[in-house]
Amino acid sequence: MHKLYGGMEGGGTKFVCAVGRGPDEIIAETRFPTAMPDETLDQAVAFFKKYPLAAIGLAPFGPMDLNPASLGYGSITATPKPGWSNADILGRFRSQFDLPLAIDLDVAAAAFGEFFWLPENQGLESLVYFTIGTGIGAGSIIHGKVVHGLTHPEGGHIRIPHDWKKDPFTGTCPFHGDCFEGLANGPAIAKRWGQPAESLPADHPAWELEATYIAHALNSVIYLISPQRIVLGGGVMQQPQLFPLIRQKVREELNGYIPSPVFNSTMEGYIVPPGLGKRSGILGAMAMAKNFLPL
Amino acid sequence: MHKLYGGMEGGGTKFVCAVGRGPDEIIAETRFPTAMPDETLDQAVAFFKKYPLAAIGLAPFGPMDLNPASLGYGSITATPKPGWSNADILGRFRSQFDLPLAIDLDVAAAAFGEFFWLPENQGLESLVYFTIGTGIGAGSIIHGKVVHGLTHPEGGHIRIPHDWKKDPFTGTCPFHGDCFEGLANGPAIAKRWGQPAESLPADHPAWELEATYIAHALNSVIYLISPQRIVLGGGVMQQPQLFPLIRQKVREELNGYIPSPVFNSTMEGYIVPPGLGKRSGILGAMAMAKNFLPL
Repeated sequence: MHKLYGGMEGGGTKFVCAVGRGPDEIIAETRFPTAMPDETLDQAVAFFKKYPLAAIGLAPFGPMDLNPASLGYGSITATPKPGWSNADILGRFRSQFDLPLAIDLDVAAAAFGEFFWLPENQGLESLVYFTIGTGIGAGSIIHGKVVHGLTHPEGGHIRIPHDWKKDPFTGTCPFHGDCFEGLANGPAIAKRWGQPAESLPADHPAWELEATYIAHALNSVIYLISPQRIVLGGGVMQQPQLFPLIRQKVREELNGYIPSPVFNSTMEGYIVPPGLGKRSGILGAMAMAKNFLPL
Repeated sequence: MHKLYGGMEGGGTKFVCAVGRGPDEIIAETRFPTAMPDETLDQAVAFFKKYPLAAIGLAPFGPMDLNPASLGYGSITATPKPGWSNADILGRFRSQFDLPLAIDLDVAAAAFGEFFWLPENQGLESLVYFTIGTGIGAGSIIHGKVVHGLTHPEGGHIRIPHDWKKDPFTGTCPFHGDCFEGLANGPAIAKRWGQPAESLPADHPAWELEATYIAHALNSVIYLISPQRIVLGGGVMQQPQLFPLIRQKVREELNGYIPSPVFNSTMEGYIVPPGLGKRSGILGAMAMAKNFLPL
């Protein structure tokens, strides 16, 4: 009999907890609003207590302390979300479960879920996952493992070219103004055009501009990491017209510099929506749990 | 007795070949101008034939085909260097040596050399090496291995903010104009200021602008890869006044976003010159040879 794994995806507005053996074998799942940390984590703990789990994967929002040598390992660091700064996610679970507990950022879990569960991704040397929604974040799998490094990637905050004449919008990022997230997250689209992003028609010029910014960012990703696949998820990417626009702009901007046949193709297999749909994060948390155990 | 390894660093103007056991035990070394491929590679082969080697590491300039499944594996791809497009470096050596042969880009070898030979780098999860000179290139070591991915990183060509009012220079890159390399390589400095970069005094405004562009690029690196150390080598970086300027501008541009104590420090241990000086490439090629063998 295969073992049971738990996964928790902790977002800024809701938490999802699931128990199962894989994407096609989820035996229980629950979701509840993100309240204060004690209440929220208690709900998650109570859910997992009902099952004989082999391991749990925890994937909360960030920023997080992911340095195993740090006293704050497994805690949220400074966040504007009231009450959550320094919330000790891993500590809470450690005090309740004598189980292997894996922890990483929600976006890293999503990247790992896409890599771990999908046959077309399993052999890749590298895969980068971007979530583009209220915030923008990135997770990278390189050589089979999530990239952490100094802290963890914060791919939303790279600087990209900003043509002020074409787009005088100053950006939404409180730290950097017109960084990638500042120019291209959901709130930026809404502020720039004066209406919610999801209410703009598919042929609105907003999407062409959005695709330009996303393509700028992906160019930096391609030049710095040379990933074998780029997955784009999140609320903004629910606009399917963005994908062909982004692929075309990436190709134009690379301008033939990278000698890979990928860039002479339609790139439909290179810049892709998540194969797990909106479930990359929760299934990724479960993958982290399964992958944690000694083989 | 320890084994002997060969290393070849093949640059656009000269080749360096060395034989030894490590940085402190080089038993022979030769250098010769980069002529046409046949002549140049014959000289390298003849040098290595004189020694009882356990393996050879080859680190030519790029771009290269580094896909082991490709027919062109180990060849230079399209290059402006006359005669070198499609030059089959690995094939030439395979026909002459029945030895393990490792091959990678010169800049990847430099990154690996810094990682492999220096005790302060050996435990790192990630290290990024930039060479900033006539060209700009990057090599990354993540989870102990060189990052290749789709082709290999081409970190010189990321887009960075370009304030046209402050710097109306259009850039030197034939593919992208004002990408990082186009704005910040040695020829860009020379063209912008009308004299060779190395002839500009240390307090010339050229260096402040150069540091700004390098800091923009390093910000993208820090956000996308979160490396534990960044090494800056190459001709332009022989200007020591650049290091404190770059560190200060990186800190300012991050603006406190990354919660690592590194960015509250002087960053003298984070953004560093190569510990192996100008020998990162040749010693890196030798490290690739040594690392190739089964442990």
